[in-house]
Amino acid sequence: MTGVGRRTLLRTGLLAGGAGVGALAVSRLSDATSAPSRADEEPPPPAHPATMPFRGPRQAGVTDDPQPFAAFVGLDLPAGATKDTCRRLLRVWTDDIDRLMAAKAPLTDLEPELAEVPSRLSITLAVGPGFYDAAGLVPHRPSWLAPLPSFTIDRFDGHWPQTDVLLQIRADSPVAVAHAQRRLVVGAEPLAVQRWVQRGFREPLTSSRPGMPFRNLFGQVDGTVQPRTDGADDALVWLGADGAPAPHGLAGGTALIIRRIAMNLDTWDRADRVARENAVGRRLGSGAPLTGRLETDQPDLRAEDELGFPVIDPVSHMRRAMPAAPHERILRAPYSYDEAPTGRQRSNSGLVFVSYQADPLRQFLPIQRRLAEADLLNVWTTPISSGVYAVLPGALPGEDLGAALLA
Amino acid sequence: MTGVGRRTLLRTGLLAGGAGVGALAVSRLSDATSAPSRADEEPPPPAHPATMPFRGPRQAGVTDDPQPFAAFVGLDLPAGATKDTCRRLLRVWTDDIDRLMAAKAPLTDLEPELAEVPSRLSITLAVGPGFYDAAGLVPHRPSWLAPLPSFTIDRFDGHWPQTDVLLQIRADSPVAVAHAQRRLVVGAEPLAVQRWVQRGFREPLTSSRPGMPFRNLFGQVDGTVQPRTDGADDALVWLGADGAPAPHGLAGGTALIIRRIAMNLDTWDRADRVARENAVGRRLGSGAPLTGRLETDQPDLRAEDELGFPVIDPVSHMRRAMPAAPHERILRAPYSYDEAPTGRQRSNSGLVFVSYQADPLRQFLPIQRRLAEADLLNVWTTPISSGVYAVLPGALPGEDLGAALLA
Repeated sequence: MTGVGRRTLLRTGLLAGGAGVGALAVSRLSDATSAPSRADEEPPPPAHPATMPFRGPRQAGVTDDPQPFAAFVGLDLPAGATKDTCRRLLRVWTDDIDRLMAAKAPLTDLEPELAEVPSRLSITLAVGPGFYDAAGLVPHRPSWLAPLPSFTIDRFDGHWPQTDVLLQIRADSPVAVAHAQRRLVVGAEPLAVQRWVQRGFREPLTSSRPGMPFRNLFGQVDGTVQPRTDGADDALVWLGADGAPAPHGLAGGTALIIRRIAMNLDTWDRADRVARENAVGRRLGSGAPLTGRLETDQPDLRAEDELGFPVIDPVSHMRRAMPAAPHERILRAPYSYDEAPTGRQRSNSGLVFVSYQADPLRQFLPIQRRLAEADLLNVWTTPISSGVYAVLPGALPGEDLGAALLA
Repeated sequence: MTGVGRRTLLRTGLLAGGAGVGALAVSRLSDATSAPSRADEEPPPPAHPATMPFRGPRQAGVTDDPQPFAAFVGLDLPAGATKDTCRRLLRVWTDDIDRLMAAKAPLTDLEPELAEVPSRLSITLAVGPGFYDAAGLVPHRPSWLAPLPSFTIDRFDGHWPQTDVLLQIRADSPVAVAHAQRRLVVGAEPLAVQRWVQRGFREPLTSSRPGMPFRNLFGQVDGTVQPRTDGADDALVWLGADGAPAPHGLAGGTALIIRRIAMNLDTWDRADRVARENAVGRRLGSGAPLTGRLETDQPDLRAEDELGFPVIDPVSHMRRAMPAAPHERILRAPYSYDEAPTGRQRSNSGLVFVSYQADPLRQFLPIQRRLAEADLLNVWTTPISSGVYAVLPGALPGEDLGAALLA
């Protein structure tokens, strides 16, 4: 009963003052005592093939195939937050995430029906620089856990600033994402307060076309060159992999970069296929380099057309994004966004760019620097926000997320 | 070549002045001349099991099972629009919709890859009162094609007003919806200009649970009592069915009501399961009436509890929504919305309520009047917009949508 006891105590403190809490606490507690699994027992096997495992040395949602629906939620700790605030927040969330990912309702969930449709839900927790401040861990903060240098292409409008904490919620169903998001945000208050939400989607109908690549709303194939996720490139993705030293408390974690990229569909519409393929450096249909036939073909940068011009433009997106060294690779899981236009907008569309890498300064920054200097796609794309987070290691049975960091 | 010739002429006039149009028109025209089907030939069979037929006496997207993703786009005709504007608009859209629903790219589409993933796309065209004004058809306007009377519960904020035209776009993929929406909006300019977009979703994972009902973000089962869609209730849904007289040019159409209902998840959170089930009149888990076991069980309105109170509250949502006469039934296809919160909002969620009925005044209005007078759910829900549209009849091979109306 220890787990439930701690939990109830915490909940009661958190929710005191809310109307109707008495009945709520009692009814959910009775569920909890008879629940088949608790955080401090053996990890249960996934309840259904369409659930993803939560317990383990690494969190889900990084090297897994991206589910088609996602919400990224930026939250801030309250003023005056301490290490204890951080611990309590991670305790609440660890239990909620454990249940939600198993397609079970969190203890305070009054809409369990929305939680119980298995939908490959993954919830990945990451922390920003402010979390280290609150937890008194500034000396341990990795050097890369700071705002990226500003680039001349950036036009941040202040709507999606860096926050203290980030929840990445992904699933096969937008209902599961909406419900999990709400439960985690409501369940965290007042230990953390939501600042913003970025939602996105990818094509869900991949089953009809296995291996179909991700296409953004420009129709462009995105994410061709990726580190391998079978373990061979773990050192590029995971902190502390292959015996590398890891920042304090982050072995088994990774660095997450999230940038919101507005895509101007109106001006893109004025570019024909030739101009588009030249800007991208790849064929729009197959995603193949302009010198190849298949998406996976190696580009031939020396190839020239009959007039002696390079077939792949030296300032095409692909050419500028190409690794200059083998370590300049990042694992990308971008999502399209297509929000309701406001005012005179005809569309409000773009990309939630998300990448994971062990070292943003060494892996991400050189690529982004090159793209900011010159990339034909910059004509149509504008970064409007940027954030850097440390994805925490996974939680072993009986552990809370962030246990090693806050030890 | 007649179809293509007319089309090209129209397009050229429409797009004159846009940058890059020359190359565009030529490259797409060459595609068009070799395209296997044209509007004035035999209707092609669906290209893939995951396409829905476009040609026929009735439009798709009314009695079909609702696809999980939808966008409703309100557009207005330009000032000075005439019957000719209306005709040209419907000609452009008929061709675009015919192609898009067959998972083919419209003629001007530069991202055909986004159009070519079969996703059960349906596009349903409906017109508002302003369309009749522009077309000089006011004497033919059905009496129900007008704003609904205002109800005391309404709190319209002006963001989603009645428009001259409505596009209903539904598919198994949000990418298909986003792409179709953009192509139709861009393709219609300047014959119609987008005023607003309302997006929504339903649970896409129904395949794992056949017959799973629609649940809104309250967790409430919605849409239990529906007219049959196998033909038995056609007179309730379709105009001119079973030999009934139909308004001029609308036989084979229907009336569409769209209302945006904000749902206050924060106050809903404070109601426990007992209070929620009492407000709804049904069990939240099964959707069964409080006097029954199955969703389809008939409610027993006379049943009393041990204290002599009615088991089903007389002002519960189900009780108030129940038909007082057999014709008081409407075909509902609601969608949840869950937009990114702005400012201090924690959530921005609700329902895009959509219903189809042959006669809104006789079928819809009595139900809505009762719900506005008294419905326990009104504590947590607020209508923030309302629109009434006439869904046009389907287009037979060689015809444009709205042919009978504009004849």
